[in-house]
Amino acid sequence: MRNLLVTIRYDGRGYHGWQIQDNADSVQERFQEALFRVIGSRPDIKGCSRTDAGVHANMYCVSFHTDHTIPADRLPFAMNRFLPDSIAAVGAREVPDDFHARYSCRGKEYIYKILNTPFRDPFLSGYALHYWHSLDETVMNEAARHFMGRHDFTSFCTVDPHRQKGDFHRTITDISVARQGDLVTLTVAADGFLYNMVRIITGTLLYVAQGKLGANEIPDIIKALDRTKAGPTAPPEGLYLNRVFY
Amino acid sequence: MRNLLVTIRYDGRGYHGWQIQDNADSVQERFQEALFRVIGSRPDIKGCSRTDAGVHANMYCVSFHTDHTIPADRLPFAMNRFLPDSIAAVGAREVPDDFHARYSCRGKEYIYKILNTPFRDPFLSGYALHYWHSLDETVMNEAARHFMGRHDFTSFCTVDPHRQKGDFHRTITDISVARQGDLVTLTVAADGFLYNMVRIITGTLLYVAQGKLGANEIPDIIKALDRTKAGPTAPPEGLYLNRVFY
Repeated sequence: MRNLLVTIRYDGRGYHGWQIQDNADSVQERFQEALFRVIGSRPDIKGCSRTDAGVHANMYCVSFHTDHTIPADRLPFAMNRFLPDSIAAVGAREVPDDFHARYSCRGKEYIYKILNTPFRDPFLSGYALHYWHSLDETVMNEAARHFMGRHDFTSFCTVDPHRQKGDFHRTITDISVARQGDLVTLTVAADGFLYNMVRIITGTLLYVAQGKLGANEIPDIIKALDRTKAGPTAPPEGLYLNRVFY
Repeated sequence: MRNLLVTIRYDGRGYHGWQIQDNADSVQERFQEALFRVIGSRPDIKGCSRTDAGVHANMYCVSFHTDHTIPADRLPFAMNRFLPDSIAAVGAREVPDDFHARYSCRGKEYIYKILNTPFRDPFLSGYALHYWHSLDETVMNEAARHFMGRHDFTSFCTVDPHRQKGDFHRTITDISVARQGDLVTLTVAADGFLYNMVRIITGTLLYVAQGKLGANEIPDIIKALDRTKAGPTAPPEGLYLNRVFY
């Protein structure tokens, strides 16, 4: 059996996230159907992470075992014929037999896009949070630095009985906020992420920008291990899984 | 009566262009309905140009007379509450009584976006032409320079009995092709445009890039006054009305 790793990008607007579920369109189901059209079977496909409804991916990785002999570099072209416009396969390669898209992952990078203009932009509807009051990205960036390093991020995790029951420690290896014109972007890399962690960090940084929280309060919010101390969960449309590290 | 000029942006994917028509969704109809919700009447609204189905606008101008007293700078905010996500009002101002969004226009600028990658991009689906063979933007830019100046552009106009019957002369004041990463963009400004003119210029420049036409053949194609001598009409999704000059 070969083990293949396929990289895709997707516009998450129409999907209830990656994972197959009843009565809802998912990226996994679309991937599985396109793969079936190419290789004629439905192997157990492993995605690199769950993603929520409306969240996007500039890079998302999927692995599966197959006996099919299609050359890896032809697979994306073949699959794109059967994938909807909102999903594109952009790469594929052979990986070792024990490679697993989720468990072999050493880290990920997310970005969160905020359109900071008085008027909304039709071309960014569903692709960025629209925030009309002026944002000071320098203040947000300084506040963001307090998240660096290894912490228990309980305060930045939505409680979900189906998810993390164990260790809430994660290590943020890079985090910054920068502006390009009207677009303010949070970039955050970590060895792993808790449920809604980037969206709660974003909501907290927006609270800092609004003066509702001081940047220097962030260490105490982390130490509190209490979700209610942090800012709100920012909406999904600004969030992109941006890179996956193996 | 006041005369107001409103500037909008719109994602043209869901619309059959600007102009109201039976049995098809149009930007004009959505604009008129939002305006009615704000000012309580349906004045005769004048758009700066027709646009085709699927064509976008980074800037589109609309003028109309009204007795309503809403301050011009509040009008875009008020209208955006009633416009769909795909259309945004981004400015408004008072103009002289004889100003007309179409007839007062001194020129326009269009851009045409081409995504030049082996794999399509889910985030540019409907927003750029996907062209997977390698494009040499330098060759295209050199070819484009031949369009500069005042010419009879009959060879670059789709015949339409409902449109231009008179003068096919137009003056192209600026034209260039440039690459930013995977995106190759044609920018063309003129005192006016014939039906499908930018899309036929784009199709012709793609023929040059493919070696099907020589850049130095363009002057002869212009002189031929024959649509069949030029390249094909590029699809609408890459085309944006970018600026309107008054």
